[in-house]
Amino acid sequence: MSLDAFPEHILLTPGPTPLHPHALQALSRPMLGHMDPEVFALNCEIQGDLRVMYGTAPGTFTALLAGTGSLGMEAGFANLVEAGDEVLVCANGSFGRRMAEMAARYGARVRVVTAPLGEAIRADDVAAELAKSGDIRMVAVVHGETSTGVLNPVPEIAELVRDTGALLAVDAVTTAGMEPFHMARWGVDYAYTGAQKCLSAPPGVAPVAISERALARHAARRTPTPLWYCDFEGLRDYWTRQTYHHTVPVNLHFALHAALRAALDEGMAARQRRVQQVGEAIVSALAPLGFSPYVRRPQDRLPTVLALRLPQGFDDAGVRQALRAREISVTGGLGPTAGQIWRLGLMGEAARPGPYRALMRALEDLLGVRGVMERFEAALDGVLV
Amino acid sequence: MSLDAFPEHILLTPGPTPLHPHALQALSRPMLGHMDPEVFALNCEIQGDLRVMYGTAPGTFTALLAGTGSLGMEAGFANLVEAGDEVLVCANGSFGRRMAEMAARYGARVRVVTAPLGEAIRADDVAAELAKSGDIRMVAVVHGETSTGVLNPVPEIAELVRDTGALLAVDAVTTAGMEPFHMARWGVDYAYTGAQKCLSAPPGVAPVAISERALARHAARRTPTPLWYCDFEGLRDYWTRQTYHHTVPVNLHFALHAALRAALDEGMAARQRRVQQVGEAIVSALAPLGFSPYVRRPQDRLPTVLALRLPQGFDDAGVRQALRAREISVTGGLGPTAGQIWRLGLMGEAARPGPYRALMRALEDLLGVRGVMERFEAALDGVLV
Repeated sequence: MSLDAFPEHILLTPGPTPLHPHALQALSRPMLGHMDPEVFALNCEIQGDLRVMYGTAPGTFTALLAGTGSLGMEAGFANLVEAGDEVLVCANGSFGRRMAEMAARYGARVRVVTAPLGEAIRADDVAAELAKSGDIRMVAVVHGETSTGVLNPVPEIAELVRDTGALLAVDAVTTAGMEPFHMARWGVDYAYTGAQKCLSAPPGVAPVAISERALARHAARRTPTPLWYCDFEGLRDYWTRQTYHHTVPVNLHFALHAALRAALDEGMAARQRRVQQVGEAIVSALAPLGFSPYVRRPQDRLPTVLALRLPQGFDDAGVRQALRAREISVTGGLGPTAGQIWRLGLMGEAARPGPYRALMRALEDLLGVRGVMERFEAALDGVLV
Repeated sequence: MSLDAFPEHILLTPGPTPLHPHALQALSRPMLGHMDPEVFALNCEIQGDLRVMYGTAPGTFTALLAGTGSLGMEAGFANLVEAGDEVLVCANGSFGRRMAEMAARYGARVRVVTAPLGEAIRADDVAAELAKSGDIRMVAVVHGETSTGVLNPVPEIAELVRDTGALLAVDAVTTAGMEPFHMARWGVDYAYTGAQKCLSAPPGVAPVAISERALARHAARRTPTPLWYCDFEGLRDYWTRQTYHHTVPVNLHFALHAALRAALDEGMAARQRRVQQVGEAIVSALAPLGFSPYVRRPQDRLPTVLALRLPQGFDDAGVRQALRAREISVTGGLGPTAGQIWRLGLMGEAARPGPYRALMRALEDLLGVRGVMERFEAALDGVLV
């Protein structure tokens, strides 16, 4: 297969997002070795920028794992959980359930707080579980549940966990870099994301932040973590002590560095604003066709993954296939919401009017309707994106 | 730091190697999602090409892990070893010792066969260990030990393991794609490498091959592997059943696909020939300066990582630093061989006269000697590279 045969696609999915132009450019810089001084200097800048992105305390250890977001999830349980530890997982979607599965694989006694599909975890339910047992060693929660477009109340949950002695691990895959994330202020001990989400860098590295408390927990383990590849001490060997641990994907470091720098240059507030503005314009444009927000309570809606319930009788698979023939990728539901919802990505470079103009135009054409584009433009008119 | 400030470096290290031009080109192709049909089609081609590269049986499962070579090592132990299993590790260098450490982390009772530094594992020693116990569940060996430039006798070891019921896991990081590797003929059950070694693709994916016997062993586990991210069943969900498991680094798939195809187009025999020819030319050129092969027995020498003992009184650190100022990267010894040897990479795009001409020229200049370049060219003259 010739790669030249691939047309340019507009990715409006919940990830990967379209690459930031600086990331694309940096990706094909001349090769360097993982132990070269230029790479260590670049890594230091990445670490500093990640502290800003995650809103960490000054000395918090940050790094890139050499894998995708799921490895970020795994590294948290692998390093911070030992066999027999009690772990409370907030699981109201696929990624929360994945957390519960991983924790169990590392020998945790897993307790789960759930919520009905399309609803956020209720902080009261977390409080009730915490009250039941004084021995919970870790609480884990997905900030933005990609599978349903739900935003979980991490600040409230963090407030409850703060004085219990439990660590708080947060999946920031669809939030950090685009939505408010305040690791230090909230009291998060471990956070991770994937490069290809809010930062619009290529997939293959997972930015993580690890609190001093989490490092101390790791240092006090009775047994080494099975996961040598992401052992927190091994990571510090490379990222702090600049000694060899394993080869890192330097080209992806180049690209992540460029994308992260671009995100900080733009500023978190500006990024949050364009997510919100483009999201509102999409809802305005599509509502008259019968699309409606899937997540009932406005405060539970994840701005970066806009979940829209499809109109009655809408040909989900057919329309998405027709869109794809026009090089526009849109994602449907996952599991129980398949055929019922679309999940529109508003992370990184997807959260701009341009890519969504293409969708609006194509929908008018495919559905034989008018006014979609007009409503989209009207909603954007006068707002800064 | 501006990435534009990085000059082009000539990487003569044991990895990463200079990118193949097709890989560099493919790296910056327009983005696609990991679930896009074009990506699945590309993955199928990668899987077929990996079967050729590894010399597998027709139905052998091949895939890319979303991480570097050490994750390939880890995935073998994580999936194929359960707590209490007896594992025999051939450890005659850093990477063999890393194998022993990983196996232990997954609960194995580890037995080790060693060899003096700079010597290959002796098949007789493996036979003696196998004779001692009838309960060895896995034998693990590094084919080419990057840390010392030693080639271990995998075919002989495989012969011994064949009828014992033990699985054979082989680290093919510096061999597969450049040196003879015959998984099916030898009887290897698990093999892995890193993209950035013999294939000259960017680091960040680890090509693996898993025999049917290894898959059956995995299917019969009493407990799930802790390592969700590389669970063989999860890998098959994505690579065989084309269902979602985790996001894969598609840009690295593009690049690996291009580099692997280029390697097969060139042909394994031609690649082995140029490693040998360039290696011999380097030895001819440098011998009069006092450089000599570090590995005593010729049959123990790993062609792709040429380990040369430095001349008496040679200023290792100073010369390598001066070379680096000229954008030429050469790697020294590791641990006990630090200051005593150089390890010259002859993998992928490094195993060509061009990059080594730059080294010869620079050495003449830095050491104030003549004839190095002439001897290098004379040794290459008339041979096909």
